Amino acid sequence: MIIVMNPNAPQAAIDRVVAEIERMGSQAHLSRGTFRTVIGAVGEEGQVDPVHLQSLNGVEKVVPIMKPYKLASREFHEEDSVIEVGGGSVPKVLIGGTHACCIAGPCAVENEQMLRKIAGHVQEGGATILRGGAFKPRTSPYSFQGHGEQALKWMRDCGDELGMPICTEVMDTRQVELIERYTDMFQIGARNMQNFDLLREVGKTRKAVLLKRGLAATVKDWLLSAEYVLSQGNKNVVLCERGIKTFEDSIRYTMDISSIPVARQWSHLPIIVDPSHAAGKRDWVGALALAGMAAGAHGIIVEVHYNPAEAQCDGPQALLPEMFKELMQQCRQIAAIHKREFLEIEEPVGT
Amino acid sequence: MIIVMNPNAPQAAIDRVVAEIERMGSQAHLSRGTFRTVIGAVGEEGQVDPVHLQSLNGVEKVVPIMKPYKLASREFHEEDSVIEVGGGSVPKVLIGGTHACCIAGPCAVENEQMLRKIAGHVQEGGATILRGGAFKPRTSPYSFQGHGEQALKWMRDCGDELGMPICTEVMDTRQVELIERYTDMFQIGARNMQNFDLLREVGKTRKAVLLKRGLAATVKDWLLSAEYVLSQGNKNVVLCERGIKTFEDSIRYTMDISSIPVARQWSHLPIIVDPSHAAGKRDWVGALALAGMAAGAHGIIVEVHYNPAEAQCDGPQALLPEMFKELMQQCRQIAAIHKREFLEIEEPVGT
Amino acid sequence: MIIVMNPNAPQAAIDRVVAEIERMGSQAHLSRGTFRTVIGAVGEEGQVDPVHLQSLNGVEKVVPIMKPYKLASREFHEEDSVIEVGGGSVPKVLIGGTHACCIAGPCAVENEQMLRKIAGHVQEGGATILRGGAFKPRTSPYSFQGHGEQALKWMRDCGDELGMPICTEVMDTRQVELIERYTDMFQIGARNMQNFDLLREVGKTRKAVLLKRGLAATVKDWLLSAEYVLSQGNKNVVLCERGIKTFEDSIRYTMDISSIPVARQWSHLPIIVDPSHAAGKRDWVGALALAGMAAGAHGIIVEVHYNPAEAQCDGPQALLPEMFKELMQQCRQIAAIHKREFLEIEEPVGT
Amino acid sequence: MIIVMNPNAPQAAIDRVVAEIERMGSQAHLSRGTFRTVIGAVGEEGQVDPVHLQSLNGVEKVVPIMKPYKLASREFHEEDSVIEVGGGSVPKVLIGGTHACCIAGPCAVENEQMLRKIAGHVQEGGATILRGGAFKPRTSPYSFQGHGEQALKWMRDCGDELGMPICTEVMDTRQVELIERYTDMFQIGARNMQNFDLLREVGKTRKAVLLKRGLAATVKDWLLSAEYVLSQGNKNVVLCERGIKTFEDSIRYTMDISSIPVARQWSHLPIIVDPSHAAGKRDWVGALALAGMAAGAHGIIVEVHYNPAEAQCDGPQALLPEMFKELMQQCRQIAAIHKREFLEIEEPVGT
Repeated sequence: MIIVMNPNAPQAAIDRVVAEIERMGSQAHLSRGTFRTVIGAVGEEGQVDPVHLQSLNGVEKVVPIMKPYKLASREFHEEDSVIEVGGGSVPKVLIGGTHACCIAGPCAVENEQMLRKIAGHVQEGGATILRGGAFKPRTSPYSFQGHGEQALKWMRDCGDELGMPICTEVMDTRQVELIERYTDMFQIGARNMQNFDLLREVGKTRKAVLLKRGLAATVKDWLLSAEYVLSQGNKNVVLCERGIKTFEDSIRYTMDISSIPVARQWSHLPIIVDPSHAAGKRDWVGALALAGMAAGAHGIIVEVHYNPAEAQCDGPQALLPEMFKELMQQCRQIAAIHKREFLEIEEPVGT
Repeated sequence: MIIVMNPNAPQAAIDRVVAEIERMGSQAHLSRGTFRTVIGAVGEEGQVDPVHLQSLNGVEKVVPIMKPYKLASREFHEEDSVIEVGGGSVPKVLIGGTHACCIAGPCAVENEQMLRKIAGHVQEGGATILRGGAFKPRTSPYSFQGHGEQALKWMRDCGDELGMPICTEVMDTRQVELIERYTDMFQIGARNMQNFDLLREVGKTRKAVLLKRGLAATVKDWLLSAEYVLSQGNKNVVLCERGIKTFEDSIRYTMDISSIPVARQWSHLPIIVDPSHAAGKRDWVGALALAGMAAGAHGIIVEVHYNPAEAQCDGPQALLPEMFKELMQQCRQIAAIHKREFLEIEEPVGT
Repeated sequence: MIIVMNPNAPQAAIDRVVAEIERMGSQAHLSRGTFRTVIGAVGEEGQVDPVHLQSLNGVEKVVPIMKPYKLASREFHEEDSVIEVGGGSVPKVLIGGTHACCIAGPCAVENEQMLRKIAGHVQEGGATILRGGAFKPRTSPYSFQGHGEQALKWMRDCGDELGMPICTEVMDTRQVELIERYTDMFQIGARNMQNFDLLREVGKTRKAVLLKRGLAATVKDWLLSAEYVLSQGNKNVVLCERGIKTFEDSIRYTMDISSIPVARQWSHLPIIVDPSHAAGKRDWVGALALAGMAAGAHGIIVEVHYNPAEAQCDGPQALLPEMFKELMQQCRQIAAIHKREFLEIEEPVGT
Repeated sequence: MIIVMNPNAPQAAIDRVVAEIERMGSQAHLSRGTFRTVIGAVGEEGQVDPVHLQSLNGVEKVVPIMKPYKLASREFHEEDSVIEVGGGSVPKVLIGGTHACCIAGPCAVENEQMLRKIAGHVQEGGATILRGGAFKPRTSPYSFQGHGEQALKWMRDCGDELGMPICTEVMDTRQVELIERYTDMFQIGARNMQNFDLLREVGKTRKAVLLKRGLAATVKDWLLSAEYVLSQGNKNVVLCERGIKTFEDSIRYTMDISSIPVARQWSHLPIIVDPSHAAGKRDWVGALALAGMAAGAHGIIVEVHYNPAEAQCDGPQALLPEMFKELMQQCRQIAAIHKREFLEIEEPVGT
């Protein structure tokens, strides 16, 4: 950690900073320049509190050197992590390293029949995990909020029948136990990326967690949220880039493609992209999905509907089954450039 | 609602849109221009689902005319709302209309003694509601997370003694019941502004709610979050601008001063500003607080500490007691320009 | 154009808006809803001035229906434009439609020898246009500002020898004439995207123009800037996405990958990406370049240096020649998915 | 300057960085931590090139300690600068320190009569500098572009008659000489804040320069642009905050109120705010102007029109004369809190 003093910081202020660094168990190294004094705090990471030092008189700024997350960092775990989703009643699907993966399905589970129909389509196109919303986060209190536990049951049955692990969103700590009974993978939505209690609760389970990036979260914030889950002992975190808020108003969110190489350099966790929510419009979903794969993502999560005009939620962004199939073919070609493969699902356990 | 068709939308697509509008109980008005057809849907607000129309073939865009929130809107309630905080063991404090209010205290409640000391300072300076964190949302899982219920007890006791209502943050639906027993006002933090389950839970209580704006939330999103609380029957919502994420990196968050006149034009709810979290640095807190008052805010919420270098949380942004006192004098002068007054607290009930 | 009136707009205000629309030569269509009156202005595009209407009493908002640019729009020119760069002393290179193109070279032209060396490398790797800065826009007045006309001469000689058209930045209207004598393609930098006099001046030439997107420009703003060039009679505009300013601070700029499908849907102009300036760091250039190609770009512009540590400008983002070569192989594979081809340069004219 | 090495940077890489620092004339101080080596470069400011160091192998990041601007910095000039505008045919007006100032007038000069009428209104309200556009930067090539030199003549005559210095925008280096003959103060628009040639040209004159902040410029970028003007010998720079681009879409631009205390801490230059262009809508101009003054600005620049519905440009944001007058009264009250005064203009020279 480096502490830059104000140009006119008195000697007493410098001495105080040095004393505090030493009190916290690190060593202080002074560099006196013509205009400023700069103090380096050298020692065990995490010993020194940057906010405390920032509060001291005469301190202009504090520059951390170490990353603030540990378990999520590439330094802690040099190899790419490969996360397993499923097992038990459904086969295991791998995400990370050379394993690319497609998670697909409807935005919301509207009824059992539509779920089965869409699940069939996405499996045929190459998806190996089935997504679907049972509890929906909606900006307006007057919008459709999901079918809850009933939808979870439909998801579980459908996944088991097709041999696909399922992924569904959890929004509230009180739902964790219920959803855990049904799902193979929790989805944490963008608006809950810093719902720290929720992160801790899913961290206490051993189910995989798909952690969407918050709309105003830096890559660093995002990895700190992953750290919340990891620090509870759950290592099965998959990052998901889904767009950030910017001034550009032609599209719903700006998919930050650079987060992929950055997150992959800083962290060992797998990362996928959600082009559907970023685009908000069917026409643009394909371009964003391919861009994500080309930038090095380990897969995609997309929304598919055979009749988007009837969808209860986010119809405009749902791909038609034939569009999805074609997109998957292109994704496979791009994955191959990075030596990744979208695997067919293995045989269901016990068959 | 206005539906703009693609330049080459076939007649069948236009007919379908018209049919859907009529099916939903509204009337469709067509305007055929040289290049495009535009369809107006006229009828009861809320009858027509924009997302559904957006999904139909040939639709270029859907432009809503009505605001998506109702109870929060100025059209629903023309006069400024005046919110009451407290009552019972402490006097009532008013926020809104001509009533300005200052909420102040430490970031986190560290122990009983420091709380009392700071509470005395802020009351002397002119604050009428005491703030203090018992459960702290922290970006890193390794940072201090608050003293929980113990801190709530200290807050309650201190507020009762000084005759100040108290305000504290709630982060999780499971804490609502506990915190409701102690607090006079719930604070919903920026990162939870779209934690919809939490909004609903505090909406079921009748305690006042201080709703901070999310870091990536538009004013419209924010009022929709207020609508979640209001729609449960709790009318006591106070908005709080605390800065948004932008590219500017000289300061922690960019306080969006324009949200004040915009929110006041669109909504009847009172709005205050939080200059401490926006600035992140003591030096700049005063300027932001004054700017907020000048832009028309109904008050401020600020962090104060007599020894910021010892604070367990956000010390760099805490005002010293004497700075706070001086700031309040300036705030009063600006409030007077807008014919608002920071009232002294009334006599405690029963004295 | 659609004019939404305030809820309480009096009849006189509505009449005034109707009268103004008719005065401007369009027809007004009224839709009276329960809460608001909405007025459609139907007629020739461009007849009605939205800003004037917005100024009238009782008007809540004005929603334009037509795009504000014409010559740049897909509606004006349905097919993809294919732009020619070069001709005369060097072969012509095509960009747009099925023609992908790579523009590469050093950031700044430092001396003749380094230019030749790098030009040889990039041509070998597959670039067909040579880039290099003679006049450099630098944030600080104390940074190296380029070698000016001398650098233009080196560029011209080098391009002619290798049979590569050249591309160099113009920053000032007074330089247009000089640079036009040497270059095959003008580059307009991000900071000059709304230097309207400069746009008009390059619009008066018939040399190709590479128009970088401004750091705070929406796709609409960008196409309006292209319109400035096109409206002067110069049809040879190539758009270049190079990243926008966002809150994310891990990378220099956020490359907005979605601008590619959006600009391609709205406009017929070719679009390429500049991953070097977006990334600011060599490690991340490849991922961004591939993402751009996958999203549908017609090519890339990249900086290459054989010894980045000696570069006078932007060394950290320059690719090494071998990295560039490998990247081009991957770009070719992705271009093929979209049925585009990076052509070898044709034989020089006259050979 | 501080150089942070990668965790695994080999000794050779460290040695190379040290050697380069020493070659550039500074001293290198090493701090070896458990995980990383950090190198401080100590010496004369400006000797060491951060970008060069960033290019070297094994370097993770380079953290500059000194501000990159000099003449604009508070360290170079501790006292607030007070800028003089006018003199000669009109009285001098002061901006900076305890001197607040209001610049007002129409957006564009439409004809002589309207200019005189508005000038009379704004002088009566308390403005001491007259603004008006002769050359207008317009996003669309099809919008009204201003009356050019004719408008400059009207401005000069009107200013001389009323004894008000005038301020008008310059957009192109080729216009500097012409505009210099007429104006007392150059305005550099937001879109030209990094038009470096233009900054240099106005820097060669001795007329005051009103430097608007770019829509995507940090405070640091802005002060570097001021440095371009100052480095040519022109010390008369006034900063002008006019809003930045953010995701918020309720208002045209987000006025970044925090730039005022930040710029005032980092620089001695005066700073004013432009609430008209930030708001884009008359209703919100007052709140932003007052917020700017409360945050510590040295004045405002606002657009006024007696008949905004007839304005050729930006009518919706123009204040009516009576609104302007009332706003100025409130601004005076807020200025007084900061011990600033809007002075009446002194007697014209020679009267």
